[in-house]
Amino acid sequence: MQNAVILINADKGQVKAVAERLAEVEGISEVYSTCGRYDLVAIARTCDFESLAELVTGRLNAVEGIRDTETLNAMQVHSRHDLETMFSLGW
Amino acid sequence: MQNAVILINADKGQVKAVAERLAEVEGISEVYSTCGRYDLVAIARTCDFESLAELVTGRLNAVEGIRDTETLNAMQVHSRHDLETMFSLGW
Amino acid sequence: MQNAVILINADKGQVKAVAERLAEVEGISEVYSTCGRYDLVAIARTCDFESLAELVTGRLNAVEGIRDTETLNAMQVHSRHDLETMFSLGW
Amino acid sequence: MQNAVILINADKGQVKAVAERLAEVEGISEVYSTCGRYDLVAIARTCDFESLAELVTGRLNAVEGIRDTETLNAMQVHSRHDLETMFSLGW
Amino acid sequence: MQNAVILINADKGQVKAVAERLAEVEGISEVYSTCGRYDLVAIARTCDFESLAELVTGRLNAVEGIRDTETLNAMQVHSRHDLETMFSLGW
Amino acid sequence: MQNAVILINADKGQVKAVAERLAEVEGISEVYSTCGRYDLVAIARTCDFESLAELVTGRLNAVEGIRDTETLNAMQVHSRHDLETMFSLGW
Amino acid sequence: MQNAVILINADKGQVKAVAERLAEVEGISEVYSTCGRYDLVAIARTCDFESLAELVTGRLNAVEGIRDTETLNAMQVHSRHDLETMFSLGW
Amino acid sequence: MQNAVILINADKGQVKAVAERLAEVEGISEVYSTCGRYDLVAIARTCDFESLAELVTGRLNAVEGIRDTETLNAMQVHSRHDLETMFSLGW
Amino acid sequence: MQNAVILINADKGQVKAVAERLAEVEGISEVYSTCGRYDLVAIARTCDFESLAELVTGRLNAVEGIRDTETLNAMQVHSRHDLETMFSLGW
Amino acid sequence: MQNAVILINADKGQVKAVAERLAEVEGISEVYSTCGRYDLVAIARTCDFESLAELVTGRLNAVEGIRDTETLNAMQVHSRHDLETMFSLGW
Repeated sequence: MQNAVILINADKGQVKAVAERLAEVEGISEVYSTCGRYDLVAIARTCDFESLAELVTGRLNAVEGIRDTETLNAMQVHSRHDLETMFSLGW
Repeated sequence: MQNAVILINADKGQVKAVAERLAEVEGISEVYSTCGRYDLVAIARTCDFESLAELVTGRLNAVEGIRDTETLNAMQVHSRHDLETMFSLGW
Repeated sequence: MQNAVILINADKGQVKAVAERLAEVEGISEVYSTCGRYDLVAIARTCDFESLAELVTGRLNAVEGIRDTETLNAMQVHSRHDLETMFSLGW
Repeated sequence: MQNAVILINADKGQVKAVAERLAEVEGISEVYSTCGRYDLVAIARTCDFESLAELVTGRLNAVEGIRDTETLNAMQVHSRHDLETMFSLGW
Repeated sequence: MQNAVILINADKGQVKAVAERLAEVEGISEVYSTCGRYDLVAIARTCDFESLAELVTGRLNAVEGIRDTETLNAMQVHSRHDLETMFSLGW
Repeated sequence: MQNAVILINADKGQVKAVAERLAEVEGISEVYSTCGRYDLVAIARTCDFESLAELVTGRLNAVEGIRDTETLNAMQVHSRHDLETMFSLGW
Repeated sequence: MQNAVILINADKGQVKAVAERLAEVEGISEVYSTCGRYDLVAIARTCDFESLAELVTGRLNAVEGIRDTETLNAMQVHSRHDLETMFSLGW
Repeated sequence: MQNAVILINADKGQVKAVAERLAEVEGISEVYSTCGRYDLVAIARTCDFESLAELVTGRLNAVEGIRDTETLNAMQVHSRHDLETMFSLGW
Repeated sequence: MQNAVILINADKGQVKAVAERLAEVEGISEVYSTCGRYDLVAIARTCDFESLAELVTGRLNAVEGIRDTETLNAMQVHSRHDLETMFSLGW
Repeated sequence: MQNAVILINADKGQVKAVAERLAEVEGISEVYSTCGRYDLVAIARTCDFESLAELVTGRLNAVEGIRDTETLNAMQVHSRHDLETMFSLGW
């Protein structure tokens, strides 16, 4: 599984709508509406690097109301949870 | 469940060690070693706000090798996954 | 009681009007018109975290004339005053 | 009453101790331990401008463990509460 | 006497005009057209804090051609000159 | 008369001492201890550009406790006061 | 051979199109679509400094959809590869 | 092939030495000593994402004299050259 | 002779045209089209400070296509060349 | 002739000494001690790009007391003066 953390600022008055749109995008696992420097943080979880690249350079750009994104690609994951199994089971 | 995204820069040469230490901290669900502006992104998932506050103002500060942290508190979560059940089952 | 400090910059010529509108918003206890890096600082005081989330992601965004906000969520409060009683009495 | 919002970053590992020390300082009404760009936000409430100046240029500088402060002086306050009476009653 | 240093950037091509307009504003003692990070620096000198607040939150905002201002409120003044007498004599 | 506005940050705990030392420096007319982004703002007033250059590149650098300075050279002054006469009279 | 690394941000929704246009520009050897602070990184490889100057001040500016560029001119290259031969062979 | 652009600042007086050390690191294809905001730009080219992750989180951190790095992971490459063949031939 | 270094960013697609216009302005000795953080660097050389002030606050602002300028006023010049004679001879 | 504009900040109290040292360095034509964001601006003028690269990556780094440099490489020069002849005559 390939993970990325995407830091997002939305157009004014669009934070909630962008969060809902992003949560529908294939490959986006979760969207957090956050306090502080960024409006939203989305977690992308895809099967491999090519799928992540398609998401970030393609589907993400098609979401309306996004002002700025900065993708932090995960090189490694440390967790006591078995994230791969959990998310692939698609709860 | 209360979530927070914690953006972290580690002391030089300490990124991997800090990631491993953080992953052991109670309340930290996952730690991503990332490319870009931040060295690490940790996801905190606690049962309520008081537990999150204890984590961020207490246990997190006790981890050695951290240079800077910025906590983005999640106000809302949008996800097709039932994160609460998934993570409470403690896979 | 859940507190947050909200740092705000207003649209040009709108500082005073925004301050007055914000002071009317449910959950906003005080609005300071400030010198320096930010035009306004609002203090939010709500009964619990859910109410704060509703305020920050909902009612706050509906206030006209705001250019930028950054919410600093309070994890803990240290005070010689009994803020909870003072503000709940609704002086 | 003269108010000021003081944005503070503390030395590493000193956030909690600084918060407690600040809450003891005459003229500091409340100290919030916050998520995000600043570690702490202190609210100063003094009877007049001279007292505020003494606090900011004197007593505040004597608190150990502070790395950086930026004082946002309040020019005006908008509130449904009668802050002046509330805080002078010294609850 | 209450002093403040106001750092100003003007709209493009408006620096000189803004300087002249500011110099006419009651409470503004001097306006410097400067090299470097800011276009203009205005010195405000008023009889008390309330007058300064009225200037900064009111009259200053009414001046056309200002893009950004940041007010640095003076807590104390150190000078070999008797500024209070000099400026109150209104040379 | 040649004017310059000097924005200064002092070493920790040295703001007051630096302000007092600066006020003694030949060519420095006034030193304001300020709220906000800078600790101190000094106004330099010299008879000509050469004296200003000597002050900024020489005497100013000899003052202990200064961490950072940024000099904003005044190209023009707009004022209802006759600053030149006022300050040369040496009140 | 003269090399330069060009850091590029594209207009919203234009990243892919700009990447494709840039890859066609004479003197641009490769264009990377990147995660993080910049949208694209282009590597320029020209026979001499004059050709690089023509590229950067001329042809690059003619590409539509670019918001910002910052050119990092290479003073020296360290590589185990014989880049000059590789790229001049025009694989 | 997986590519990444690594922006690097070196310790004072160490730019040349760091460039030479980096060029020896497995997976680093080229190192440019650059003018401007960054001292060095290294291009990483590895067979797959796991090798890149090992390079960035491991071998890169072991290079002495590096002050700061920021890795821009390439999602896609656009080039008229067949980079994969060129670099795998190991000229 | 009074010198200043003027750092300039031009409107998109206007760098070359602005460079040519600036080179015609009285008091501007040279204009460099540069790589990096700024598009252009102009060197102003005037007979005295008043002429420099007129240039920077007047003629420079009249040049079309300039987005931002920041003037670095020279306090002293160190050179093995006799710049004053060279440039006054008007080669 | 190859030109570059080098923006320099010096170690505290070292501005004048660094300026004098730089002016002695082969290839540095002039050093300006400046007001504002940078302490010094040096103009490099060399016969070709290789000499400039040697200066910037070699001799410049050997000058003591420099804290930070950022080199803006000139791609083109616009001037009414014949800079090449003037500086090669070595006045």
